[in-house]
Amino acid sequence: MSCKTILASKVSASFRNQIKEDIKERNIKPKLVGFLANEDPAAMKYAEWTSKTCAETGVEFELRKVTKLELEAKITEANEDQSVNGIMVYYPVFGGKQDLYLQSCVSELKDVEGLCHKFVHNVYHNIRFMDDTETMKCIIPCTPLACVKILEYIGVYNPVIPYGNRLYGRTIAVINRSEIVGRPLAAMLANDGAKVFSVDVNGIQVFTRGTGIKLAHHQVEDIDATVEEIIPQCDVVITGVPTPKYKMPTSLLKDGVVAINFSSSANFEDDIKSKASIFVPSVGKVTVAMLERNLLRLHDYQNNLTEKKN
Amino acid sequence: MSCKTILASKVSASFRNQIKEDIKERNIKPKLVGFLANEDPAAMKYAEWTSKTCAETGVEFELRKVTKLELEAKITEANEDQSVNGIMVYYPVFGGKQDLYLQSCVSELKDVEGLCHKFVHNVYHNIRFMDDTETMKCIIPCTPLACVKILEYIGVYNPVIPYGNRLYGRTIAVINRSEIVGRPLAAMLANDGAKVFSVDVNGIQVFTRGTGIKLAHHQVEDIDATVEEIIPQCDVVITGVPTPKYKMPTSLLKDGVVAINFSSSANFEDDIKSKASIFVPSVGKVTVAMLERNLLRLHDYQNNLTEKKN
Repeated sequence: MSCKTILASKVSASFRNQIKEDIKERNIKPKLVGFLANEDPAAMKYAEWTSKTCAETGVEFELRKVTKLELEAKITEANEDQSVNGIMVYYPVFGGKQDLYLQSCVSELKDVEGLCHKFVHNVYHNIRFMDDTETMKCIIPCTPLACVKILEYIGVYNPVIPYGNRLYGRTIAVINRSEIVGRPLAAMLANDGAKVFSVDVNGIQVFTRGTGIKLAHHQVEDIDATVEEIIPQCDVVITGVPTPKYKMPTSLLKDGVVAINFSSSANFEDDIKSKASIFVPSVGKVTVAMLERNLLRLHDYQNNLTEKKN
Repeated sequence: MSCKTILASKVSASFRNQIKEDIKERNIKPKLVGFLANEDPAAMKYAEWTSKTCAETGVEFELRKVTKLELEAKITEANEDQSVNGIMVYYPVFGGKQDLYLQSCVSELKDVEGLCHKFVHNVYHNIRFMDDTETMKCIIPCTPLACVKILEYIGVYNPVIPYGNRLYGRTIAVINRSEIVGRPLAAMLANDGAKVFSVDVNGIQVFTRGTGIKLAHHQVEDIDATVEEIIPQCDVVITGVPTPKYKMPTSLLKDGVVAINFSSSANFEDDIKSKASIFVPSVGKVTVAMLERNLLRLHDYQNNLTEKKN
């Protein structure tokens, strides 16, 4: 078999080294606070692993276990605490719309996950800076950003094409349209020039910038098509269905497809390597590297802002 | 029977008269744009009725029918259009978290419904002004505000007690904990001093400011109690369950209870007047009056801001 399996640890290594060096050279100790307000053992495990991973690069990670009902007050406290550089929350907390409310309660200057309304809105509108003077780049949601960095690493982004157009000509399927990962990811890929099929239980949408090379934010259309019709057209298939029951049939994939799974369950079938040219079985380690990258960026914004104020 | 039925039209009349006079005296023509992106005939009917009601008081209402997928771009367009003073959306659009995203896409200065993150957050935190200099009062979500105005009208708010404490000593149940109505309403009533039981399918919470007379924002606790245990304690029961199948048993209510229904379905049983001292069967007309009131306020903010800029 000629399929190349790319592990997230390989993609994350260069980011992690850079973060480590940066922290060491500048002799800083950025602090990330993670809030755990659910009883999910998987979240606890993920938190412990985040803590270990952060420690290796010189980031201080503090896990704060709180109740669901005290979480908002604790976020506000951390927003105002100058010793905290970044805040993340292990979702789901309440599970519904109240979680989206909580996402926007995190201060923009500490939102390492990039999930507050302003950052998500800017992703959809291809607005790359958070301030009018364009000195501070927006924070991008970690998992979509991890997928983009993986696509860059494995050459799906074509560096010969100018920045902002490097997916021009590519057709990509994203199987998940959550507000946290799938929808922003589809928008980001379309903003960079791809034609993106966004698939979820409610149907299929196409995200595209329209025809031609241009810098513009994407448009979205509902289409009347089936997964069976669209998957064979795709150069890249990215899955994120949070159940082991879901499997993308290998038979639908085109020869030489790039297959990326960001679900914690395996969404591709065991024979995926018989079809794919590149297979990325998970993205978690890149996600955490992006979390740290966002933290460093926010740390710098916070310090610049403080300098401006004084 | 001694129960007094209070119709929303009676409560809204004085607000409507004041709005009408205000518009006439100042010779202004505030414009409200309503976006309809669903096929719900009830929403269409409600939109037509809003249009008629607005016309009677001198507010120009324009209904814009759009597709779900073009809605965000149309909101952005209206945000930037100086001839539009207020924007409202007939929800549900997508139905899930994407609707909460859309709510925050409406500009704060045009959000007549008070549903963007900032306004909702300020309700929870009892922050009454939207600017640091405290010149612009926050916009309060219309249906919760309508319930408060009804409670003022029927004397549940006690004007003898200082402002901000006028529900001190009252016990109120709110049967609905949606992000749009039930949760902000429970918070507002607790911020004004009441002990509020917030009931939904996931359980019962108590919203309270704690003990004593003070100005502070509310705290929330989960409690292990049943509807059968809490309803008999309540001076006021406010229902908002969006199905005709739900009925609050009259037998649970205490004698002389104040019963208010904001659902479009009748949530109280037919014999409600045998127990209640005051019964308010619907609040819709007060909600629209609050929509117009919010519109006038935003119209003024927009004009003051323009003056400041020039």
